[in-house]
Amino acid sequence: MSTASAGTRTYSYLGPAGTFTEAALGQVREAEGQNWHPVANVGAALDDVASGRSDAAMIAIENTVEGGVSSAQDALANTPGLRIIGEYLVPVSFVLVAPRGTTLDQVAEVAAHPVAYAQCLEWLGKNVPGHSPVVAASNVASAIGVLDGTLPAQAAIAAPGVVNHYDVEVLAEGIGDNPDAVTRFVLVTRTALPPARTGADKTSLIVELPKEVPGALVDMLEQFATRGINLSLIQSRPIGDRLGRYRFVIDADGHIADERMADALMGLKRFSPNVIYLGSYPRADHEQNRYNPRYADASFADARDWLRDLLSGADPA
Amino acid sequence: MSTASAGTRTYSYLGPAGTFTEAALGQVREAEGQNWHPVANVGAALDDVASGRSDAAMIAIENTVEGGVSSAQDALANTPGLRIIGEYLVPVSFVLVAPRGTTLDQVAEVAAHPVAYAQCLEWLGKNVPGHSPVVAASNVASAIGVLDGTLPAQAAIAAPGVVNHYDVEVLAEGIGDNPDAVTRFVLVTRTALPPARTGADKTSLIVELPKEVPGALVDMLEQFATRGINLSLIQSRPIGDRLGRYRFVIDADGHIADERMADALMGLKRFSPNVIYLGSYPRADHEQNRYNPRYADASFADARDWLRDLLSGADPA
Amino acid sequence: MSTASAGTRTYSYLGPAGTFTEAALGQVREAEGQNWHPVANVGAALDDVASGRSDAAMIAIENTVEGGVSSAQDALANTPGLRIIGEYLVPVSFVLVAPRGTTLDQVAEVAAHPVAYAQCLEWLGKNVPGHSPVVAASNVASAIGVLDGTLPAQAAIAAPGVVNHYDVEVLAEGIGDNPDAVTRFVLVTRTALPPARTGADKTSLIVELPKEVPGALVDMLEQFATRGINLSLIQSRPIGDRLGRYRFVIDADGHIADERMADALMGLKRFSPNVIYLGSYPRADHEQNRYNPRYADASFADARDWLRDLLSGADPA
Amino acid sequence: MSTASAGTRTYSYLGPAGTFTEAALGQVREAEGQNWHPVANVGAALDDVASGRSDAAMIAIENTVEGGVSSAQDALANTPGLRIIGEYLVPVSFVLVAPRGTTLDQVAEVAAHPVAYAQCLEWLGKNVPGHSPVVAASNVASAIGVLDGTLPAQAAIAAPGVVNHYDVEVLAEGIGDNPDAVTRFVLVTRTALPPARTGADKTSLIVELPKEVPGALVDMLEQFATRGINLSLIQSRPIGDRLGRYRFVIDADGHIADERMADALMGLKRFSPNVIYLGSYPRADHEQNRYNPRYADASFADARDWLRDLLSGADPA
Repeated sequence: MSTASAGTRTYSYLGPAGTFTEAALGQVREAEGQNWHPVANVGAALDDVASGRSDAAMIAIENTVEGGVSSAQDALANTPGLRIIGEYLVPVSFVLVAPRGTTLDQVAEVAAHPVAYAQCLEWLGKNVPGHSPVVAASNVASAIGVLDGTLPAQAAIAAPGVVNHYDVEVLAEGIGDNPDAVTRFVLVTRTALPPARTGADKTSLIVELPKEVPGALVDMLEQFATRGINLSLIQSRPIGDRLGRYRFVIDADGHIADERMADALMGLKRFSPNVIYLGSYPRADHEQNRYNPRYADASFADARDWLRDLLSGADPA
Repeated sequence: MSTASAGTRTYSYLGPAGTFTEAALGQVREAEGQNWHPVANVGAALDDVASGRSDAAMIAIENTVEGGVSSAQDALANTPGLRIIGEYLVPVSFVLVAPRGTTLDQVAEVAAHPVAYAQCLEWLGKNVPGHSPVVAASNVASAIGVLDGTLPAQAAIAAPGVVNHYDVEVLAEGIGDNPDAVTRFVLVTRTALPPARTGADKTSLIVELPKEVPGALVDMLEQFATRGINLSLIQSRPIGDRLGRYRFVIDADGHIADERMADALMGLKRFSPNVIYLGSYPRADHEQNRYNPRYADASFADARDWLRDLLSGADPA
Repeated sequence: MSTASAGTRTYSYLGPAGTFTEAALGQVREAEGQNWHPVANVGAALDDVASGRSDAAMIAIENTVEGGVSSAQDALANTPGLRIIGEYLVPVSFVLVAPRGTTLDQVAEVAAHPVAYAQCLEWLGKNVPGHSPVVAASNVASAIGVLDGTLPAQAAIAAPGVVNHYDVEVLAEGIGDNPDAVTRFVLVTRTALPPARTGADKTSLIVELPKEVPGALVDMLEQFATRGINLSLIQSRPIGDRLGRYRFVIDADGHIADERMADALMGLKRFSPNVIYLGSYPRADHEQNRYNPRYADASFADARDWLRDLLSGADPA
Repeated sequence: MSTASAGTRTYSYLGPAGTFTEAALGQVREAEGQNWHPVANVGAALDDVASGRSDAAMIAIENTVEGGVSSAQDALANTPGLRIIGEYLVPVSFVLVAPRGTTLDQVAEVAAHPVAYAQCLEWLGKNVPGHSPVVAASNVASAIGVLDGTLPAQAAIAAPGVVNHYDVEVLAEGIGDNPDAVTRFVLVTRTALPPARTGADKTSLIVELPKEVPGALVDMLEQFATRGINLSLIQSRPIGDRLGRYRFVIDADGHIADERMADALMGLKRFSPNVIYLGSYPRADHEQNRYNPRYADASFADARDWLRDLLSGADPA
C-alpha cells in the first residue's frame, strides 16, 4: 500500500480502474500525474486519509450507482479530522461491452452490477429481448468477468471508463434509461483551511437534534431559513447505536466565509448537542448562490455597527 | 415651563398631582426632591425630554386607566433620540372621595373618568345602588370638581394619590372590581448608555415587517424564538400614514448586553426595514429572566470559538 | 333606560351625541330611525347587549381618540355571548369650535380631551400660539363646557359631529396633525349567525397560549401562516388575574365560511387552552382578501377528496 | 417467472435465497408456504407487483447492507399504484463461512460484498490479520463462489441465512463491527385499504416542495409540527429529471386513520405540487406512537363540534 509523500500526492478512490469514481478523480486537475490508489470501499478510502496514507480520497456521496452512499455519510460522521474540499459530478452513463468481435445478436446473457442493471432495464428490454441477467460485483467486474470468462455472459453493462483500461468491443453507449442521471462525488482531505470562497459554494454538515420532540427539526432548519440560506440536501440518518436517534446530513448553499453561513453555523452550534462541519467548497455546477440582499455580508456588517452604537449609548446613524 | 439644569433634574409626568403617573414617579428614588413637571398628555412629556426641557418623562405604557397608551407607543415610535431606562408598576386601585363630612348614604351622583367608572361598576352597583354617573376629565379632576362644586356630584372616584394633595373624606378604598389590576409605566430619557444588566431585564422595540405577506410576522418572531427569548408584549400598530401597514411594539425578556438579545437585535436589523430600539432596563417585578442554558452567554462564546477554529483550518477543540 | 323591542331596535354607543362613536353608528343603515342609546363607557354598552337591553352596541376597538380600546378588548374577552357583525371607520378629524361670534384671535384658552389635544399640537402651535390648554372629559364635553361657561376656555377641540347637535361657530376644520388618522369601530350583537361572506371579510379572535415557553407564540401564529392567512391585528393583553399570563387579540383576513379560516380556527382550538371567536364580518375598507390560490376553497375540497380515496384503498384520481 | 394466482400468493424479493431480504420475508406469517420469487434488484420486485406477477414485494428501504436504498425510494416514487403494508427489521449480522472442514487459520483470502466487507473490517483485522479481500456480487454470492471455487478465496462473509440453503462450515458468527446495526425492509402491494391502525404505526410519504425558496422546507415540515407529529425519516432526493429540484421521502409517526395524520396529509396536499402517499402500516418495533394529548382524536372531534356551533350561530358548549 502506497504512502503519501512530500513530492507525490496519493489519492484513494473506489477501484478498480474504470469506475465512475475514477472518472470523478479524473476531473481533479491537481491529481494528474499523481499516485492513484484504488480501494475496495469508502471506509478504506477515508481511513487512508485519516491515517495519512493518502492525501485525499474521492468518494460518492449522493445518487450513486455504485452503492455505499449511506455508509459514506456514516463514515464521514464517525471519522474525525476530515474536510470536504471539492465536489464533482459524473454523468451516470452506461456502455454495453463485450469481447472483441462480439455482435449484439450473439448476446443471451448480460453481466451487470444489480443497481446498474436496474437502470438499463428499458433499453435492454427493447434491444436485447429475452436475455438473462448475470450478477457482477461492480461496474468494472462485469466487464472483466466477461472478458476472462469467469462470468457466464456474452456482454457486460459497464461504466464508460472501462474502455480506457480494457480492450473491449463497445456494443452500445448511453444505454441508461435516465439520460440525465448524475452521481455526486466529494474530495476529502484532513482538516485544513477551507478553499477560497467563489460565490458558488456549498457547505456540508452533520447535525444532531437536541431531543426528539416534534418541532426540534423545524427549529433546527429555522437556523438556515432565518438567515436566508437554501438547503440542497437534507437526510436523516439513524445514529446507529440504537433505533430512534437521528442525525441530519445537510448541504447548504454558501461558504463558511459568508457572514450568513458563519452566523447560521454558530446558531446550530448553540442549538445542537453535536454539529460536525464537513467543509465549504466550490459547487460542481458553478451555479452562483442566490440570496435575498437582506442577508448579504454588508447587511451583517451594518447590523454590527448598529448594535455597537446602541451599546455605546449613541443614536444609530 | 421649567428648564433642565445641572443641579436640579426635571421630570415630566401626566398631571395634575395625584394621578397614577405621579404615583409611578414617586417610585423613582433619583427623582426625590427634584423638579416634577406636570403636563397634559404623553406627547408633551416626551417633547419635554426630546427638546431638553426635562431630563426624563414618566409615561403609562400598558393597561392604563388614564388612556393614551396607543398614543404613547406612537409617540415613542415617532420621536427619535429617546430611551426607556426604567419600568414601574402601579396598582390600579381607586378610592371614593368626597368633601369632608360626607357619608356614603348622601351620595346620589358619582363623578368619574369613564374608564375608571367602568372598572368600579360592580362595587358601585352593590354599595351605591341607584346612583348616576357624572363624567370627569381625569382621575384627579373628578375629585377637584366635587370639592369645588364645578361637577354636580357628591362623591368622586379618584386615584389614591389625591389624598396627598387634597383635603377629602375617603368614603371607601379599593373599590376597583379587579383587585389585581396594575398599570405599567416607563421612565424615558434622551439616548444614553443602557442601565446595567441585572439579570431581570426587559428590552423594548418597535419593528416593521419587510412586507405584508403571510409568514413575515412568523419570520420576525423566529428571530426571538431561535435564540430562546420570551416576549411579554407584542402589539401591532398601524403605521399611521395609511391603513394596512403595521409595525410591532415588542417587549422581550432580557438585556441588550445579553449575547442572545444582541444577536436577536442584529437578526431583526437585517430582517426588518426599520427597527427602533427603545431601551433595555430592569423589570419592575424583579423576576429573573429564565432561558434554556443553550442560549446562555457562554454558549455564544463557545460557538464563536468553534467558528474561529473552523475558519483557521484547525480541528475544533 | 330603554329596552330592546321587536318593532324598534336599540343601539348603545359611547355618548353623548356628537362623538366619533355616534358618527360610526351613523354609518349603519339598519340603525336609521331606531333608538340610539348613549352610555358612559364601553363596558356599559356591551352589558346592554349581553343583558338584552340593546340589540347592538357600537364600540371603538383600535387607534381610538376617545380612550378605552384596551378595556374594549378586555370587555369582549370577558363577556360571553357576544359577536362582532360589522366594522366601521371614522376619520379622526377635529374641529375648533366656539360660541357664535367668536373669532380665532380671541382664543387664549382651548378646552380639549387630552388625547385629542395631543393630536392637534402642531396646528395649535402655528395657529393659536401662546394659548393654554384646559382639560375636558371628552370630545363633546369640551364644546359643551365652552358653550355653557363651565370650562374656562374660549374655544374647544371637538369631534366634527358636535355641529349637528350644538349651535357653534366653527373656527377651523381638519386641525388634526395627521390627516390620515382613522379610528376603527365594531358593531356588536348577541351570538348569531355570522353575516354572509363577502370576500372582503375579517375574523376577530382572542386566543390564549398553552404555556409561556419561547416558541408558543410562533406555534400559534403558524396556524394562520400554514393556511396562508394574513393578520391585520395582533396584540398581547395581560389576562388580568395576574402579571405574566397573556392572551392575544387577533384580526385575521377572511371569513369563518372560508375553508382556510375554518381549518385555522380548528387548529387554534386544538392548540390553545382558550379560543374566543368574536365574529366574522365585512371589512370596512371593502378590500378583497388576497391569498395564495393553494389555499382557495377548492384546494380544501380537493384535499378532502384525495384523503377519502386514500382511506378507501383507491388510487387517487 | 411465476404468476400470482388466487390460491397461492407470490412474494418477490432480492435473491438469491439466503439474503437479508429473504430473512425479512421470513418474518411475514402470511408468506409461509407461499411462492417466493427471487429477483435481481428492487425495480424488478416492484415491477412484479405493479404488473400483477406478484402479490407483494419485500424491499430494503433504509440503512441497508445490500445497496440500492436510494433506488428503492426512487422506484416507489415513480411506480404508481403501490402501497407499503408492513415494516420489518433484520439485524445486520454477518457470518464467516467456508467449505466443510476449513479452519480459520487456513484463510488468506476473504470473499465479500464490498459494503459487507467494510462493516467487518475491525473483526477481520483482529481475527484474520494479513488476509486479502476478494470482491463478490452479494452477501450470498460470496459464499457460493467460495463453495464452487469460482472466487479465489477460502472463506466468505455472508448473511446468516446462507446456512439454511448451503452446506457450509461456520467459522465465526456476529463478525459485524456494529452489533446494533439493523436494516429496515418494507412489504409492498398494489393500492389497497391500509392495514388497521394499531397505535404503533408509521406513515410513508414522498412530497415535493412548491418551489425552491428558503423557507419552503420549513413550511412543509410545519404541517407535521403544528399537528404534533414526529418524523422518523426525512431525506431529500433529487427529482432526477435535472439537478436542483428535490422531493422529500418522509416517515411520520402515526396512521392515516389518526385524525392528526389525516389532517396533516390534507395540509400537505394543499401545500405541495405533488404528494405521494405510500402507506400506513404497523411499526416493526411495536413502539406506541406518543403525542401531546392536544392532538388526540377527541381533540379534533371537539374542534369540529366547536366550529359547527360557531357556524350555526350558537354559543359554543
